[in-house]
Amino acid sequence: MSVTIQTLQQALTDHFAPWVQDLGLQVVSADTDGVCVRLPQSDQLFRVGGVLCGQAMMAAADTAMVLALIQHFGEFRPCTTVQLNSSFLKPLSGQDALVVARVLRAGKSLAFGEIDLRGAQDGKSVCRVSTTYALL
Amino acid sequence: MSVTIQTLQQALTDHFAPWVQDLGLQVVSADTDGVCVRLPQSDQLFRVGGVLCGQAMMAAADTAMVLALIQHFGEFRPCTTVQLNSSFLKPLSGQDALVVARVLRAGKSLAFGEIDLRGAQDGKSVCRVSTTYALL
Amino acid sequence: MSVTIQTLQQALTDHFAPWVQDLGLQVVSADTDGVCVRLPQSDQLFRVGGVLCGQAMMAAADTAMVLALIQHFGEFRPCTTVQLNSSFLKPLSGQDALVVARVLRAGKSLAFGEIDLRGAQDGKSVCRVSTTYALL
Amino acid sequence: MSVTIQTLQQALTDHFAPWVQDLGLQVVSADTDGVCVRLPQSDQLFRVGGVLCGQAMMAAADTAMVLALIQHFGEFRPCTTVQLNSSFLKPLSGQDALVVARVLRAGKSLAFGEIDLRGAQDGKSVCRVSTTYALL
Repeated sequence: MSVTIQTLQQALTDHFAPWVQDLGLQVVSADTDGVCVRLPQSDQLFRVGGVLCGQAMMAAADTAMVLALIQHFGEFRPCTTVQLNSSFLKPLSGQDALVVARVLRAGKSLAFGEIDLRGAQDGKSVCRVSTTYALL
Repeated sequence: MSVTIQTLQQALTDHFAPWVQDLGLQVVSADTDGVCVRLPQSDQLFRVGGVLCGQAMMAAADTAMVLALIQHFGEFRPCTTVQLNSSFLKPLSGQDALVVARVLRAGKSLAFGEIDLRGAQDGKSVCRVSTTYALL
Repeated sequence: MSVTIQTLQQALTDHFAPWVQDLGLQVVSADTDGVCVRLPQSDQLFRVGGVLCGQAMMAAADTAMVLALIQHFGEFRPCTTVQLNSSFLKPLSGQDALVVARVLRAGKSLAFGEIDLRGAQDGKSVCRVSTTYALL
Repeated sequence: MSVTIQTLQQALTDHFAPWVQDLGLQVVSADTDGVCVRLPQSDQLFRVGGVLCGQAMMAAADTAMVLALIQHFGEFRPCTTVQLNSSFLKPLSGQDALVVARVLRAGKSLAFGEIDLRGAQDGKSVCRVSTTYALL
């Protein structure tokens, strides 16, 4: 069952807190490589120095993985994040971020995923995230 | 060198992105047990079902640890999050969260910390976070 | 249902690989604070410089948490490690390690735990581990 | 500066504890995709049920990453593991494991890496590890 970009974009308003929606995430693509979401640069997300705050990176990663699970299952399934581990490789500034989430493995009760955040212009990874979700 | 609650509350506006400030964090205490910050319940932070979203928990934890480092060093020192690992033990709803951050060890270049998020009413842990910061 | 130190010590030979048994773990105590296991210092576990290798710390932590789950449930329940995250705070040398594992929360299908490794002489934490187990 | 498989194999005896050497790791390849090490199946590493124990997976991952750092720098540089996070996707039995470690980013003081453990026969990922090392 194939999930459209429109369905995933709609899921961002249906299933997430308003404060998460303030990130302004835009679904870019959804294919066999996973789901790609754009996190637009914004003064609201910059900490001192014009650097994208890590809190926004983690929130975008967690959110993108839920979309990747929707894509994987062909529909929204209730789930909850069990673990989310983030490594911050380098700062990001002066560009949007692309957030690529993919499901590594999904069993009956647990799903594992990985997310890469990179600069939309230079393509360099800035944050790597690994997650575990419980399927309810 | 002792850091006051007022200094830490001021740091929340000086060093963090506006989107992080939208969490409305309030410094409750700062002593030898670490820094305690209140995350007020808000419709903005609820996902469907009236449950505090995990993104807000991680953001609050990361933020509280920066305050704990300010307390530890007696002043703000430039730092960057290297790793942040979150375990989500159970959902939180219907109450504020208390976020307690403490520095486990701070060396010349790295600092380690742990954060506990618990219900402000029932006192039950809902999220545990371990972090590593690079001191710049 | 109370589990004795002898039961836990026996579990170390019943449920673990011979290579893990080579660590020579000794159950010290099992009470409401969790399970404490001693990891004796040994040339076999030292890397260059006489420092306890991190691989042994992680293995001891994972093993001690299984014992803590036995204590928690009053019997051995089949389980599998889902996630294990280790932070290495400082090196350990010239002394045994004490490994204290405790269950943070155990639900129907998932259990969360934390482990602290510290010097048996100086009592200083050298490694902190957080884990998630799936109960089968 | 290019590092040979022989140099990496020798590093396994020069820099690691005897207990880690008991894993019997064999360097398979070292190229732009990272360092690949074989973990031979062995009764010593099986827990009940003939399943490769997670402790061996973590130890092999940590060890392989040190080799990947040697490859990256062209020589052994003193380093210490700061963080090692493991996700256990599925059990492995009846085959060797291949452990592929690659450096994501190496700065002046910190290096980030990721390791994939997979079945040598079926090629399926069984464990994913992300690590941070401090360069001394």
